[in-house]
Amino acid sequence: MSGCETVGAPVSGLRRDTRARSIMTGDGLHDFASKLYPICRSITGQGVRKTLALIGEHIPLAIREVPSGSRVYDWEVPPEWNIEDAAVLDAQGERVVDFQKHNLHVVSYSEPVAQTVSLSELEPHLHSLPEHPEWIPYRTSYYQRNWGFCLPHATRQTMRSGQYRIDIKSSLASGSLSYGETAIPGRSREEVLFFTHVCHPSLANDNTAGMAVATALAAWVAGEPRRYSYRFVFAPGTIGSLCWLKQNEQSLARVRAGLVLGLLGDSGPLTYKMSRDANTETDAIAGYVLSQIDRNSTVIPFSPYGYDERQLCSPGFNLPVGRLTRSVNGGYPEYHSSGDDLALIRPECLERSLQACKLFVTVLEQDARYVNRSPKGEPRLGKRGLYGSVGGMSPAEREHAMLWVLNQSDGSKSILDIAKRSGLPFEIVHEASLALEGAGLLRSAVKGQSRRAASSHDGAKGVRRKSSGSGRPAASRRKGDKR
Amino acid sequence: MSGCETVGAPVSGLRRDTRARSIMTGDGLHDFASKLYPICRSITGQGVRKTLALIGEHIPLAIREVPSGSRVYDWEVPPEWNIEDAAVLDAQGERVVDFQKHNLHVVSYSEPVAQTVSLSELEPHLHSLPEHPEWIPYRTSYYQRNWGFCLPHATRQTMRSGQYRIDIKSSLASGSLSYGETAIPGRSREEVLFFTHVCHPSLANDNTAGMAVATALAAWVAGEPRRYSYRFVFAPGTIGSLCWLKQNEQSLARVRAGLVLGLLGDSGPLTYKMSRDANTETDAIAGYVLSQIDRNSTVIPFSPYGYDERQLCSPGFNLPVGRLTRSVNGGYPEYHSSGDDLALIRPECLERSLQACKLFVTVLEQDARYVNRSPKGEPRLGKRGLYGSVGGMSPAEREHAMLWVLNQSDGSKSILDIAKRSGLPFEIVHEASLALEGAGLLRSAVKGQSRRAASSHDGAKGVRRKSSGSGRPAASRRKGDKR
Amino acid sequence: MSGCETVGAPVSGLRRDTRARSIMTGDGLHDFASKLYPICRSITGQGVRKTLALIGEHIPLAIREVPSGSRVYDWEVPPEWNIEDAAVLDAQGERVVDFQKHNLHVVSYSEPVAQTVSLSELEPHLHSLPEHPEWIPYRTSYYQRNWGFCLPHATRQTMRSGQYRIDIKSSLASGSLSYGETAIPGRSREEVLFFTHVCHPSLANDNTAGMAVATALAAWVAGEPRRYSYRFVFAPGTIGSLCWLKQNEQSLARVRAGLVLGLLGDSGPLTYKMSRDANTETDAIAGYVLSQIDRNSTVIPFSPYGYDERQLCSPGFNLPVGRLTRSVNGGYPEYHSSGDDLALIRPECLERSLQACKLFVTVLEQDARYVNRSPKGEPRLGKRGLYGSVGGMSPAEREHAMLWVLNQSDGSKSILDIAKRSGLPFEIVHEASLALEGAGLLRSAVKGQSRRAASSHDGAKGVRRKSSGSGRPAASRRKGDKR
Repeated sequence: MSGCETVGAPVSGLRRDTRARSIMTGDGLHDFASKLYPICRSITGQGVRKTLALIGEHIPLAIREVPSGSRVYDWEVPPEWNIEDAAVLDAQGERVVDFQKHNLHVVSYSEPVAQTVSLSELEPHLHSLPEHPEWIPYRTSYYQRNWGFCLPHATRQTMRSGQYRIDIKSSLASGSLSYGETAIPGRSREEVLFFTHVCHPSLANDNTAGMAVATALAAWVAGEPRRYSYRFVFAPGTIGSLCWLKQNEQSLARVRAGLVLGLLGDSGPLTYKMSRDANTETDAIAGYVLSQIDRNSTVIPFSPYGYDERQLCSPGFNLPVGRLTRSVNGGYPEYHSSGDDLALIRPECLERSLQACKLFVTVLEQDARYVNRSPKGEPRLGKRGLYGSVGGMSPAEREHAMLWVLNQSDGSKSILDIAKRSGLPFEIVHEASLALEGAGLLRSAVKGQSRRAASSHDGAKGVRRKSSGSGRPAASRRKGDKR
Repeated sequence: MSGCETVGAPVSGLRRDTRARSIMTGDGLHDFASKLYPICRSITGQGVRKTLALIGEHIPLAIREVPSGSRVYDWEVPPEWNIEDAAVLDAQGERVVDFQKHNLHVVSYSEPVAQTVSLSELEPHLHSLPEHPEWIPYRTSYYQRNWGFCLPHATRQTMRSGQYRIDIKSSLASGSLSYGETAIPGRSREEVLFFTHVCHPSLANDNTAGMAVATALAAWVAGEPRRYSYRFVFAPGTIGSLCWLKQNEQSLARVRAGLVLGLLGDSGPLTYKMSRDANTETDAIAGYVLSQIDRNSTVIPFSPYGYDERQLCSPGFNLPVGRLTRSVNGGYPEYHSSGDDLALIRPECLERSLQACKLFVTVLEQDARYVNRSPKGEPRLGKRGLYGSVGGMSPAEREHAMLWVLNQSDGSKSILDIAKRSGLPFEIVHEASLALEGAGLLRSAVKGQSRRAASSHDGAKGVRRKSSGSGRPAASRRKGDKR
Repeated sequence: MSGCETVGAPVSGLRRDTRARSIMTGDGLHDFASKLYPICRSITGQGVRKTLALIGEHIPLAIREVPSGSRVYDWEVPPEWNIEDAAVLDAQGERVVDFQKHNLHVVSYSEPVAQTVSLSELEPHLHSLPEHPEWIPYRTSYYQRNWGFCLPHATRQTMRSGQYRIDIKSSLASGSLSYGETAIPGRSREEVLFFTHVCHPSLANDNTAGMAVATALAAWVAGEPRRYSYRFVFAPGTIGSLCWLKQNEQSLARVRAGLVLGLLGDSGPLTYKMSRDANTETDAIAGYVLSQIDRNSTVIPFSPYGYDERQLCSPGFNLPVGRLTRSVNGGYPEYHSSGDDLALIRPECLERSLQACKLFVTVLEQDARYVNRSPKGEPRLGKRGLYGSVGGMSPAEREHAMLWVLNQSDGSKSILDIAKRSGLPFEIVHEASLALEGAGLLRSAVKGQSRRAASSHDGAKGVRRKSSGSGRPAASRRKGDKR
């Protein structure tokens, strides 16, 4: 990207483990969201940088700065906006609308103003929600020079005609757009992408919740060796994701799967929005994960509106990326208003969202295709000590899983396919496959890959396994079985 | 076709605009059906010619005459049948059954008879409906020499034993089978075919309703320049459609889509019967049109029985043609009896049927595939004045439509595909595509075609657009949107 | 198969027609099952041989003997097990558990034992069903040297502590595994495989019912010339089917379709379990047959557990074979216990199961693909005497069937496809196709095959027809039809 400039090293190079661990719980996630909440973010400016700095306390984060005026596809990075103070003062000098009390009171990207106007001149610059008279709406004017104030409708109705002093101490000046990213290398160069927007001021569910979950997930993913490489991007919506796309256009072919994260703290059901093609590995895994983790979860079709899936899934990129939220954009009354505050997001909901993301990663990492090395008839599991109970696991389930894996493993079906067809949990089928591979009854369907030899690249459908070290006790035979 | 002879020029070469316009309304359609109703039609004879002459008063109609004895595939055009009078007279000379009172009283294609018979000799020649004792049934004997009378069962039960005079003044003589057709050339030679049968005497829904709607539709289609060519055929059932197929066998490959029309005046729900292949453009559009125009409408599978879809969709032709009716053949008690009279068909039903046909033509004409010329990320619609409301249209719907068109236009999806996937009305998606094309953001997916240059041929998947001349006012930004 | 030895000629070379006929009825099937019931079968031994001898009284049966120790894929044929007597005797010499009273009392493959043990030493060798205290469970220990007794839980609870004499007069010695098969050659070398297990002692539904139905079906199939070749295998489960697979591995490619038969006598609904690929001809026909024969019937997906479909459908063979049962394995309380006795199986259920098998064979034999020789428009059926009623058949159904066959016969659709699409019974569609072929309107879609010329091989999709000799009376024309 010609006009894009990379400003370098991670803000915080070392992960502080105690903090990383602390944001793994619901309370930890909520605490972190609460720290992010008061910051006045927009698509550029110090608010984004402060936010990225807080995130960088938990994970190593490279900060990119893209100068104002840079051409980004059909767009241009706007001037950097910063704000110090803003108010509407009445004739008595009373701050009727006061930015110090809530970030949402000023329309984002309001130009600097210092003038006195009549109420009727002021009116077109005021925004309120008659249907929710206590809430302050959220409004922006990024690409059209303008200014304005947002206020509770109840307050607006108390304003008498007369003169008002408008005082907006903001700046629109050449600067840069900031975003942060962390890359976690795995054995394969294929990447899994997580994307969350960081441009909303003092809206808790949209999007301090997404930032908190994405941060915790990145810390967790970094915690052990991974099959795939992972990339977490924290960027302003639309123009920020376009900057990232422009800067990474040459390596987008590496993106194997991914999720846009947002709205992850409210009590609505987990909702997966499919990718544009609706038949990607991301779709298969996310749909499965939601069915396992939340019986009220829902899968909705792709649409070209919402968060950064709009850009990532535009036809020129068409990345295999879906979106995970709880409620959807516009799907709850507090959306884009001061009603979306820290009380709206709940520790247990944040934690459950994080669990769903972790399971998504786990299934992606563990899914594999195998070939049964003893495909004529069933191999004798009993003589290999594979038939019987291990720990508290139901023997029936585990043995069924082994029969399913052996039967389906002709190289065309993955562990996830088998879990879906059999109705058995992915984890059980995965463990059965490890046990069978350990006994020499399975081999990877990907040529040249064995479960013990690590290689730096997975093929597009590559699979690799950790050693299972299985050596289970001889199992007793079951009723009605001939083995 | 060896034995087929074309007898030429249109009966009425000039469309009389006032009449054409008059049959566009429900009342106009009903009036026209009422004019056609009293004529005694059969598969040949003067009744068909009188019918075609009346149709020819509204649209230019070429009349084809196919001589008796012509071989038509496995069939042969039968002798021409005409009838002057027919009656069953009792001993007192009373006309117990009187063709002058209703065309249905005589079995179609009855041979001439003048003889006196006993009631018991007469019985095998009488047809009535015990379950509907007031109605006269409709019976034919085209290919087996025979004669007969149809009468209300109530009348039949009053007939005493004794001698009856049978007097049928009909003729079965060498002549010809008549059908009419009108061809409306468009920019493409690809044709859209509308087919309706014209062989039923004094049955209102079956088929003066179909003739009226087909006539009005042809006049409407001819009223403006068209992308595709159109052909309307008014022919006797089975043998008539076979004659048309034989005469046009060389150009059937041009048929891109089409509908058999019939039973379009009763109050049953609009019913689309799919083509033999069930996956043609005709099926996609007709199914969509019905879903839009009538919430009670229904789509039924193909079956090789009914009207001329039997011939058009036989495996040797397999034309991409479906069928539009309201009730289906055999689907209402009055079917094929005198109960199918002018009271059964209703102006508003005729008009709604015509609307469905027009919408079918409109979608077919306007559907197109585009390629987004700015496919990487969303293009900025705001700076092009495309984001905002125009007229009374909902801005949200229009803006969503633009995002959908941009996202899906990779050349593989048509406007109709996008309308279906998005749930937005075809018309809105179509207008969005015109606006985007006008702004230079879309181009036709068909090589060498632009929206301004007209060419005489569309490819099989060709699309062409009229200039949209869009120049909409700068639109104001919407809540929650980043543009 | 290296270690497998074929021991030759059929036990009974001539079918005794009176017996064969007698097992065609429900009572006959039940009688035969009752004869098989008392025999103490296992996966080897004299019980299997006695069973095969009884079956051989109805159909010619070749007996194969596979020596103990033979390697069969991942398995090995175990020593031959025979048993004379077994009992648990109390201090008074009373036979508390007595093999003479029920075969199930001894764990199958129990090694010989003669010793005195305390009740607590005996306990691990006792098996009972607390939830069904009156039933004796069925237990085996084929591949792990062990011994044990099965008894009603009620009896077990009466056993006082003290010393018990254990007396098992069994033998585990080198011998052979026995199975039987009958091959019925047809015009084509392609084979239809029926497989049933013969290793369960004194369990009526599982599997004297399957043996009885398979025997009767084989006799019926042999009763007239057939298009396909048929093979019926009566073998011990798992190790027996593996022996058969090993011995026939070179000719498995000939298997065109097949069914594993079992559990065919209880009053549960007929249940078809699909083949591994779920889209075979077997699946299409079996699903259709069940829908026709039993409105409560059900089709269940493949799973790699159950009877010998586990081996036949393992990925190295993947035969196009499904399974027909009434209740499924484990699907009724009496399963694998003495509750599965002769009262559980009912003559009318056995007979209905046999009917389903016969219809499966009939559809398989009669299904065919045709090409309409008069594909342009409908041919005139009336002039060929094909339009009208024959016998008690509904004319409407028959005529519709002819229109359907003519319309769909472009070589791609089979009679079964047409029956499914039209909703007409297979038999009616089949007869319509014979009539049309007889009239010269259809030809086989398989090159070089005519309905009159017999050839010894059908192609993979081959079809052949017996002469239909149709010469039906001229049919009268129907209302509303133009022919």
